[in-house]
Amino acid sequence: MHNIAILGASGYTGAELIRLIAGHSSMQIKALGANSKAGQPLGAVFPHLRHLDLPPLVTMDQIDFSGIDLCFCALPHKTSQEVIAALPKDLKIVDLSADFRLRDPAEYERWYGNPHAALEQQKEAVYGLTEFYREEIRSARLVAGTGCNAATGQFALRPLIEAGVIDLDEIILDLKCAVSGAGRALKENLLHAELSEGYHPYAIGGTHRHLGEFDQEFSAIAGREVKVQFTPHLIPANRGILATIYVKGDAQVIHKTLEKAYLDEPFIEVIPMGEVPSTRHTRGSNFCHIGVAADRIAGRAIVTAALDNLTKGSSGQALQNANLMLNIAETEGLMMAPLFP
Amino acid sequence: MHNIAILGASGYTGAELIRLIAGHSSMQIKALGANSKAGQPLGAVFPHLRHLDLPPLVTMDQIDFSGIDLCFCALPHKTSQEVIAALPKDLKIVDLSADFRLRDPAEYERWYGNPHAALEQQKEAVYGLTEFYREEIRSARLVAGTGCNAATGQFALRPLIEAGVIDLDEIILDLKCAVSGAGRALKENLLHAELSEGYHPYAIGGTHRHLGEFDQEFSAIAGREVKVQFTPHLIPANRGILATIYVKGDAQVIHKTLEKAYLDEPFIEVIPMGEVPSTRHTRGSNFCHIGVAADRIAGRAIVTAALDNLTKGSSGQALQNANLMLNIAETEGLMMAPLFP
Amino acid sequence: MHNIAILGASGYTGAELIRLIAGHSSMQIKALGANSKAGQPLGAVFPHLRHLDLPPLVTMDQIDFSGIDLCFCALPHKTSQEVIAALPKDLKIVDLSADFRLRDPAEYERWYGNPHAALEQQKEAVYGLTEFYREEIRSARLVAGTGCNAATGQFALRPLIEAGVIDLDEIILDLKCAVSGAGRALKENLLHAELSEGYHPYAIGGTHRHLGEFDQEFSAIAGREVKVQFTPHLIPANRGILATIYVKGDAQVIHKTLEKAYLDEPFIEVIPMGEVPSTRHTRGSNFCHIGVAADRIAGRAIVTAALDNLTKGSSGQALQNANLMLNIAETEGLMMAPLFP
Amino acid sequence: MHNIAILGASGYTGAELIRLIAGHSSMQIKALGANSKAGQPLGAVFPHLRHLDLPPLVTMDQIDFSGIDLCFCALPHKTSQEVIAALPKDLKIVDLSADFRLRDPAEYERWYGNPHAALEQQKEAVYGLTEFYREEIRSARLVAGTGCNAATGQFALRPLIEAGVIDLDEIILDLKCAVSGAGRALKENLLHAELSEGYHPYAIGGTHRHLGEFDQEFSAIAGREVKVQFTPHLIPANRGILATIYVKGDAQVIHKTLEKAYLDEPFIEVIPMGEVPSTRHTRGSNFCHIGVAADRIAGRAIVTAALDNLTKGSSGQALQNANLMLNIAETEGLMMAPLFP
Repeated sequence: MHNIAILGASGYTGAELIRLIAGHSSMQIKALGANSKAGQPLGAVFPHLRHLDLPPLVTMDQIDFSGIDLCFCALPHKTSQEVIAALPKDLKIVDLSADFRLRDPAEYERWYGNPHAALEQQKEAVYGLTEFYREEIRSARLVAGTGCNAATGQFALRPLIEAGVIDLDEIILDLKCAVSGAGRALKENLLHAELSEGYHPYAIGGTHRHLGEFDQEFSAIAGREVKVQFTPHLIPANRGILATIYVKGDAQVIHKTLEKAYLDEPFIEVIPMGEVPSTRHTRGSNFCHIGVAADRIAGRAIVTAALDNLTKGSSGQALQNANLMLNIAETEGLMMAPLFP
Repeated sequence: MHNIAILGASGYTGAELIRLIAGHSSMQIKALGANSKAGQPLGAVFPHLRHLDLPPLVTMDQIDFSGIDLCFCALPHKTSQEVIAALPKDLKIVDLSADFRLRDPAEYERWYGNPHAALEQQKEAVYGLTEFYREEIRSARLVAGTGCNAATGQFALRPLIEAGVIDLDEIILDLKCAVSGAGRALKENLLHAELSEGYHPYAIGGTHRHLGEFDQEFSAIAGREVKVQFTPHLIPANRGILATIYVKGDAQVIHKTLEKAYLDEPFIEVIPMGEVPSTRHTRGSNFCHIGVAADRIAGRAIVTAALDNLTKGSSGQALQNANLMLNIAETEGLMMAPLFP
Repeated sequence: MHNIAILGASGYTGAELIRLIAGHSSMQIKALGANSKAGQPLGAVFPHLRHLDLPPLVTMDQIDFSGIDLCFCALPHKTSQEVIAALPKDLKIVDLSADFRLRDPAEYERWYGNPHAALEQQKEAVYGLTEFYREEIRSARLVAGTGCNAATGQFALRPLIEAGVIDLDEIILDLKCAVSGAGRALKENLLHAELSEGYHPYAIGGTHRHLGEFDQEFSAIAGREVKVQFTPHLIPANRGILATIYVKGDAQVIHKTLEKAYLDEPFIEVIPMGEVPSTRHTRGSNFCHIGVAADRIAGRAIVTAALDNLTKGSSGQALQNANLMLNIAETEGLMMAPLFP
Repeated sequence: MHNIAILGASGYTGAELIRLIAGHSSMQIKALGANSKAGQPLGAVFPHLRHLDLPPLVTMDQIDFSGIDLCFCALPHKTSQEVIAALPKDLKIVDLSADFRLRDPAEYERWYGNPHAALEQQKEAVYGLTEFYREEIRSARLVAGTGCNAATGQFALRPLIEAGVIDLDEIILDLKCAVSGAGRALKENLLHAELSEGYHPYAIGGTHRHLGEFDQEFSAIAGREVKVQFTPHLIPANRGILATIYVKGDAQVIHKTLEKAYLDEPFIEVIPMGEVPSTRHTRGSNFCHIGVAADRIAGRAIVTAALDNLTKGSSGQALQNANLMLNIAETEGLMMAPLFP
């Protein structure tokens, strides 16, 4: 049985980690850090978890990390790097923030607006897209969870860039994101009365920070600079990311390339040619569904991908990585079927 | 490993059974009956289950029941009794329809409008409210799953009627039900554009069929006729029943009575005095949350209860009963935490 | 053409007033006060109103009230009384806050927790439930808009209490309220991810402030103390209040009493016996639909009422009152049909 | 006062026409045709319209067209052409179906799968995109309402194609459509439990019928064949279309071109450079909001457009056209502000 700590337990990704670990056969939660709600029982902050027998929320400095085997950091960006810099240097960590995703500190500063405060840790961090960094993750001390949008786009595109079957200069990602991706922060534009019954694009024109990840990863695979066009939209639903990706290439070849790439992957389902995924069919699960269709215009294809931003896009991915780091079966605690309807 | 058949696999309660059994350690699905969609793979009817390796949908007469240990019937009312009458007489069955809930055939005919077509089976059926019929269910061949509204109301009221701590002539149940309780039928009033963004009562004035169950059960406990007032409402959400029950009695006594009754129950959580449950905190789980508050008018209390109509209200209850019938741990496959947000 | 000022123009009831007045034939908006967003154009705060040619948002002390015929105050409770105390003493005012609803300052302090800061104005305020205070409103200088829940309950109950056709000691109001009633405040429990897909009671046990209005009004009509039992619930929709009211009395008599009471009212529709209203059918309009049904238990009836909390429950009522105060046809600007779907 | 008939009054576009005409100063509804619900009062089919004093629903052959000045046909595709072929040859008609949108009968048959049954009427039909066919509509007898998706895309793109400021071979339209666009038909995929909380693309790969309109119109403007790439998505909301359009061209030039094109248009709002529209801000109104942003990749821009599919996308457009045909002010009955929240 492995002892687990979770920092940032009062946010949505923290709650999702607890939900998942509650069904895990060889992990037990030993500490729950949540500075702003320290002193409260978990059930007061997340009543859906009231049935669990868990330690109360504490401030982070109240946690004794000596018996902890692995720590999840589900803290806001910038806070995370400061906290992690102060944690024991031999503690295994899966970070869910954006702080260790970009390998180049200059790129980090460009997208996030501040110099990085934990450069040493950043150097050892492994990018946490499990299906593509599996071996590095297995032996990593610090794994940086990917952005949820960045994960969705990469599942659809990495094998295609790798195989050279699409035009690298003509990739357009139109993403539709559910609300929980924005977290539990108090912002007017996240109120129910503002969001429900309507939808809109945001971060238009290539200003979304997850582009930093796309640029880093796609350019590395291609061996040249690859810049995608990316527009996210906020949709009135709580969970789910849908990516509609417009590419130039042969749809059949693209479909075969994806099928081949994910043949042995337990969580990536390439669905039959011409079919489309739906966010409702991955809800609450660690699965990602990918579809391919030819457009009526010859030489063009549409690649679509759906996953749950809180599970496969964040906390599920984090647990998958933790399983690898602790030498547990990769799928342990993650095979639950989606919740529909 | 127990072999399971599910009849009515293309409806919502069928899908929910499959979701739950997919995570069960000692059951395997051997047959999926769905006459209207026979011949299709399950993933075509329920794409969220496409990752599962399951037999294709077949007509019911294509199923060989000889190797089946237990059969779930998730068929529409009236169809269910006809199908069950024709099944092997020694096959263990958990029925999710309304067909075997009422012990008195005259009551059945009064509420459902047709004479019962499986009187012999009706006689042996055990009412499936697990927490109150546990021993009978353990040795039953045929268990009748309760109505989802009926289950919610009974969890809140049975211990109070039993203990004699409320006025039996002044019980008012105001229920708020999510949409999936109405099933996957093609009805204009179930369309998204009709239902979302609004809510309304239905079956007003004491005409809802689940009243047959309330009458049968509450009168049996009290040893006299008990008739509750019951108004359901349709709410724009997919899962969840919330009961707000107005009773006359001492709120503290009521709270203590409920706490005592459910002290050892794994799925019933009596929350602290004065707190209220929310459907979103039981979503996708087998838990039921019950709250009690005193009203400002002396001698009156409000008992509130929330559960997921598809899980604890239907398929989760069915699996809980099947565990008992097959001598498996009652909670097996049912301890997953709710999905929030 | 009458000159209008609106204070609190950046909240939902402020926006609703602007929407309604934009379609009014004899009112023009001359000033929009919104301290926190002063300096911004209205279209930046409410993009749905960007097509209107209106003055920019200003702080309240920037407004010259000398040419204003009537001022709507759509400010938060407590702020409103302070602002109104400082306004010109001869300015006609329709207040949408709770500050002038309760005639007894002790009752105000009991429900709102602070001594009243504008006792002089409170004395002259007329309770703004148009259908029942029409003549007083016509000649009033200051009209206090009712609570949206309080309005809904009173439309259903006032004629019945007046006519003496229900048991005054056995009135239970179960209310279902949409989210916009809680305003645009930044509270965690109003986030989309918290609210959608679930529902729960709140202010349970008779603690909701609108009870002060029920007590005041019902007791005045009955000539004795009347205390109702009242439980509100928050429902995942943006607009609409549904009241399900449990009473003891003859349903036919109740229905006839309501039909008679509202025969000539342009906005109150008593629907046929046995039918039920739905919030979605009053959305965006100034109509209130009221239904009556007999319960299966003899001598009991259920009265149901639906209206839009932002329109008939708040800003529409305010405009209806303003029409009376300015000697304009009462229905002017208010006859738009509901928006469905 | 002009006498109006509406055929297909029991569908959503029929109800929307009634809502709008109820607020029109110089139209009165004289006949409401709805074969499947003939004999019922309108309030039974659309309770939100119960306050209106309107004729009951009748079958179409019960309508005396001799006193009718203009007839709206809100019938399903294919039915519409058969009905219109049989109507008086001098009756002014605004058709909301797809039947008269395509000028070339071969194109009609290609997209809709059946030969056209009213070729004579098709010849005289004018395409009803008001802002671009205003003069033809004024003198037309039969106007063909556009597709709601087709209208949205054309508002964003026509001035750009006309002005030659974008690359005609690289236009990608990613559309997000609300549910009411699919009408009130009984289809499993339109149920609330299927649709809410999730979203997906449909008609992928260039198979959506509105492409027929795009091809016809864009090619006519350009004087050469123009084929756009078009993927619609179904979003869990009742009203609203959002188009995210990826083009190659200079964003500033594009924005100026749109501003100039719509300078005098009462219903088309080009919002400031870099801002984005939202469907919730056009809800229930006849407005269309259009935004432009430059992408981070030089030479690329994103044009976004939002409107209400039932109003500006269908019934509002139809009324705007009827106003022109009857020599009424074009904006009469259409200036209501959007409903938010």
